[in-house]
Amino acid sequence: MNGWYGKILRVNLTNSTTSVETVDPQFAKDYIGGRGWAIKCLMDGMDPKADALSPENLLIFAAGPLTGSPAPTGNRYMVVTKSPLTGVLTNSNSGGDFPTWMKRTGFDMFIFEGRAERPVYLWINNDQVEIRSAEHIWGKQVPETTDALLAETDGKAKVACIGPAGERLVKAAAIMNDKDRAAARSGVGAVMGSKNLKAVVCQGTHQIGMADRPGMKKLSQSMNQEVGHDSKTSVLRIYGTPYVPDVTNELGILPTRNFQTGRFEGVEKINGPALNESFLIRPGACFRCPIVCNRITKVDAPGYEGEGEGPEYESIGALGSACGVDNLAAITKANYLCNEYGMDTITAGMTIACAMEMCEAGIIPEEEIGYPLKFGDADGMIEFVKKMALREGFGDKLAEGSYALAESYGRPEFSISAKKLEFPGYDPRGAKGMGLLYATSNIGASHMSGDLAYAEVFGTPEKIDPLTIENKPELIKRFEDAFTLIDASGLCVFLAVRYVFDKDVNLWPTRLTELMNLTTGADYTPATLMQAAERVFNLERLFLLEAGVTKADDTLPKRMLEEPLTEGPAAGQVVELDEMLPRFYQVRGWDENGVPTPEKLAELGISA
Amino acid sequence: MNGWYGKILRVNLTNSTTSVETVDPQFAKDYIGGRGWAIKCLMDGMDPKADALSPENLLIFAAGPLTGSPAPTGNRYMVVTKSPLTGVLTNSNSGGDFPTWMKRTGFDMFIFEGRAERPVYLWINNDQVEIRSAEHIWGKQVPETTDALLAETDGKAKVACIGPAGERLVKAAAIMNDKDRAAARSGVGAVMGSKNLKAVVCQGTHQIGMADRPGMKKLSQSMNQEVGHDSKTSVLRIYGTPYVPDVTNELGILPTRNFQTGRFEGVEKINGPALNESFLIRPGACFRCPIVCNRITKVDAPGYEGEGEGPEYESIGALGSACGVDNLAAITKANYLCNEYGMDTITAGMTIACAMEMCEAGIIPEEEIGYPLKFGDADGMIEFVKKMALREGFGDKLAEGSYALAESYGRPEFSISAKKLEFPGYDPRGAKGMGLLYATSNIGASHMSGDLAYAEVFGTPEKIDPLTIENKPELIKRFEDAFTLIDASGLCVFLAVRYVFDKDVNLWPTRLTELMNLTTGADYTPATLMQAAERVFNLERLFLLEAGVTKADDTLPKRMLEEPLTEGPAAGQVVELDEMLPRFYQVRGWDENGVPTPEKLAELGISA
Repeated sequence: MNGWYGKILRVNLTNSTTSVETVDPQFAKDYIGGRGWAIKCLMDGMDPKADALSPENLLIFAAGPLTGSPAPTGNRYMVVTKSPLTGVLTNSNSGGDFPTWMKRTGFDMFIFEGRAERPVYLWINNDQVEIRSAEHIWGKQVPETTDALLAETDGKAKVACIGPAGERLVKAAAIMNDKDRAAARSGVGAVMGSKNLKAVVCQGTHQIGMADRPGMKKLSQSMNQEVGHDSKTSVLRIYGTPYVPDVTNELGILPTRNFQTGRFEGVEKINGPALNESFLIRPGACFRCPIVCNRITKVDAPGYEGEGEGPEYESIGALGSACGVDNLAAITKANYLCNEYGMDTITAGMTIACAMEMCEAGIIPEEEIGYPLKFGDADGMIEFVKKMALREGFGDKLAEGSYALAESYGRPEFSISAKKLEFPGYDPRGAKGMGLLYATSNIGASHMSGDLAYAEVFGTPEKIDPLTIENKPELIKRFEDAFTLIDASGLCVFLAVRYVFDKDVNLWPTRLTELMNLTTGADYTPATLMQAAERVFNLERLFLLEAGVTKADDTLPKRMLEEPLTEGPAAGQVVELDEMLPRFYQVRGWDENGVPTPEKLAELGISA
Repeated sequence: MNGWYGKILRVNLTNSTTSVETVDPQFAKDYIGGRGWAIKCLMDGMDPKADALSPENLLIFAAGPLTGSPAPTGNRYMVVTKSPLTGVLTNSNSGGDFPTWMKRTGFDMFIFEGRAERPVYLWINNDQVEIRSAEHIWGKQVPETTDALLAETDGKAKVACIGPAGERLVKAAAIMNDKDRAAARSGVGAVMGSKNLKAVVCQGTHQIGMADRPGMKKLSQSMNQEVGHDSKTSVLRIYGTPYVPDVTNELGILPTRNFQTGRFEGVEKINGPALNESFLIRPGACFRCPIVCNRITKVDAPGYEGEGEGPEYESIGALGSACGVDNLAAITKANYLCNEYGMDTITAGMTIACAMEMCEAGIIPEEEIGYPLKFGDADGMIEFVKKMALREGFGDKLAEGSYALAESYGRPEFSISAKKLEFPGYDPRGAKGMGLLYATSNIGASHMSGDLAYAEVFGTPEKIDPLTIENKPELIKRFEDAFTLIDASGLCVFLAVRYVFDKDVNLWPTRLTELMNLTTGADYTPATLMQAAERVFNLERLFLLEAGVTKADDTLPKRMLEEPLTEGPAAGQVVELDEMLPRFYQVRGWDENGVPTPEKLAELGISA
């Protein structure tokens, strides 16, 4: 096959065995790759009701057909598994260099099953696969782990690993690659920790076949130029994602003090210009990426010293404004700590924000925390990031995530989450489509699952009214399917800033279809490619339903549904989810309970 | 003072003493900084007739007032000294991180005089200045030297050093900083080697005063955005300078086989897309730079393995097309070697190209070279880069540069150089202004001294006919002064892609004037700032005249003056230097022998 190798590496950690499976070409095409292949293997290979931290759960690393191709941003991989934080599916995406090196091993996907008796890591050098002891690196932070593994394998290899948070089964634990890049959300690092799998190290010389290599080179070059010259990607190089706080604050949807408001008085201290002037060393990029959105930073401020990558906008929102913290040195330090311990900055920051509000409200007694945890306390925020990662003291409760924390005090409404996954940095009361997305995404409140903020906040492909609910169900279906396609193909969502939807042609992913066909030789049309993405999305929904999700779980916190924002352009607004959800089910071809109809499944070729 | 510290560190290597000098504010303003301050100190402190490799020569590292400021690209320093390659002045510019770290030491400039008895390096940590033994690192290549010095000083410091080429007084030797950045031209590394100075290591916490910090931040932010969104800088991020071979080849001015022609049949194998597809790891940037033009690369091809930065366009031209080499792996490898040995890729490549032509013509006997050195021989090119850097065998002759090489066989016309400095990558027969620049630049054939290719080749600020000589004397004066200003202020010439000349206001550097005033508090107008640059340029000319340069040296090789190009849009063209030069002298206010008139000197406030 072209594009795909059609080879899956299966690693049974319980028995310390590995095997190679070949993939049927029709399956390859029907499920695209990446997130798509992975959900099919997850569905076929495990009981969706299984405990996420049990050996029954499968942990899947999946590259797409465009990962490692010349396509701009063609360098992402997905971690797909059942989430211990949410109890439902997750898929978590990362870039850096690792995804291309993963593809160079000659496999499209790694499936980890079972649990190793003692800590191990996997060393894959082309077809040489070794399960090696990781006892000597267990307990080490991400940078030390990475350096140690490069030293004992091949200095030119690439490493994905967990840190102390993953080892301790912290439900915000991430899988880190290339030290600072994260497949962060939903506790994928805890699943890896539960399997006693410390790291995966990849090196290889395989090159994917290409149906039309000259054509692919030509198209990729021209897209590279277009995306490199695009003003919507240029801003990502100038400021990185930290250009966003100003935008969301202006719209009144910057998460502030656990979403009590959407405007933060300290925004100018934590925005892109502030980061550029204080801590930026230089912009950085994932492998061969023309967008260059990373921030290579260094903090010299006493007490906050460190260096690494970030913070991204989401980390600034969660560790900063959501916690009422306007100290950018502290936010950046906390971001470094999350990377070093291997922990999702969003769940970490938002869970601490939740604890701050509950402590201020007297619901969590200060004595229990052992500290007066209040909004605006930069050093307290940092301290509890550490405690959370290490499950020390009250950190043990934080480590379960905001929903479990709030529920344990009988007040789950303080957790600003959907399906127990903490919200990212867009208050949906001022961006209604995002509310519907958070409620219906297959992994909980993730902007990465169909980021309508592109249109509602940033005007891509064109600006739409963020406050209306009209047409939002239709758009969310479209965006969810499109982002599924990006994830499945192995591209970065930032390419979507320019390419996924061509507004001139009815939101069809025409250029992605060309890339896919030149690479794989499949004769996708924009319609059949979007249908394949819809197939993937629906299969994910079936996994959720089998795991026990019902219509009642497609919801949002009370604050979003009943408490209007009080300032800014969205003052007075809540999310009218009840009005959008039934229409969304209809648009999706699901029944009134959110279950795909037999007709829809037949149309998509999914056998029930 | 603001902008400037007004402090010069003087290091007498003969006596192992250091002293600190303060600068008069009027001098600071009159000579801007960087290249401007340096020529005044050179003029006052040494005999222009002194041997460049003698202890009498001064080696000056000079930062400008905008170095280390928030101004976009405000991160350059200049090396100013008498050149051993050309026998005249040189100023050589570099970026990376070192220039900002240099400024953080609290000094604007370092002046090295005399010669150490044994190898030493300088370690400057704020006001702590130490001359330390470098015997243990003498002989080491640039990366090893850098790592060793970081380990024994401060891992966060920044290093400028020479490699084996500088130690051996190779006249193409560079001073390398941050491993891969080079103050490359005219043999500045040999001057450093002649002083037994292996390296300068900088660390510090000083911050320059700013006349109007909020105003400077605001302007810099807005310029950062403008330059970051500019399509002429975007192409530098997408392809780096390797986007240029296609452009110059199209115009028939890509140096090919020692400038025998301007069109290279192998151009598509050595251009930007080829580099992106084969060896690019990711784009890279100097400190806080929004342009991101560096290429972080890695070569796995057997026999050419290596990693580092580059190649830039100039290196591709010199080591590639000028040598008839279309093997990009070999060019990239040779570029790595030049960086590791510490050697200018332009002089290295062009000198080997000169030797190839003379060998093919039978003027240099093959037996003397010990190798059939012919155009197109990639491995021969690499081999002689090594030999040149180490002065091994025939490499000892190459190490003197193309002019000395060709002259030693009685055929200096085979050296394509001006004032003995090898041409960069624009054949001036197809870009006439560049011909006048090469002939009149104060350092010899340098594009960096007033790069009219911006207008003649790239259309900045607007496209002008490259084949006409009309108005070229006026433009070259304007460009030479403007590039002097950029060098003196501490900015990068790539900012000039957008800013130096605002075509709407008569080619005045209005934005640079604002940056300078906000930083220094000096009340420059665009006119007085350009006049200060003109003052610097004229003082440099006086240095040349005192060193013995005459009108006869303001010339070009016979090939440029008498042998027309044979293909492409510039077929039939030569450089009509005789027609441009008298007018240029006039425009400059110089007499018919190229000597500044007393009136011009009085106007500029230079006392004879």
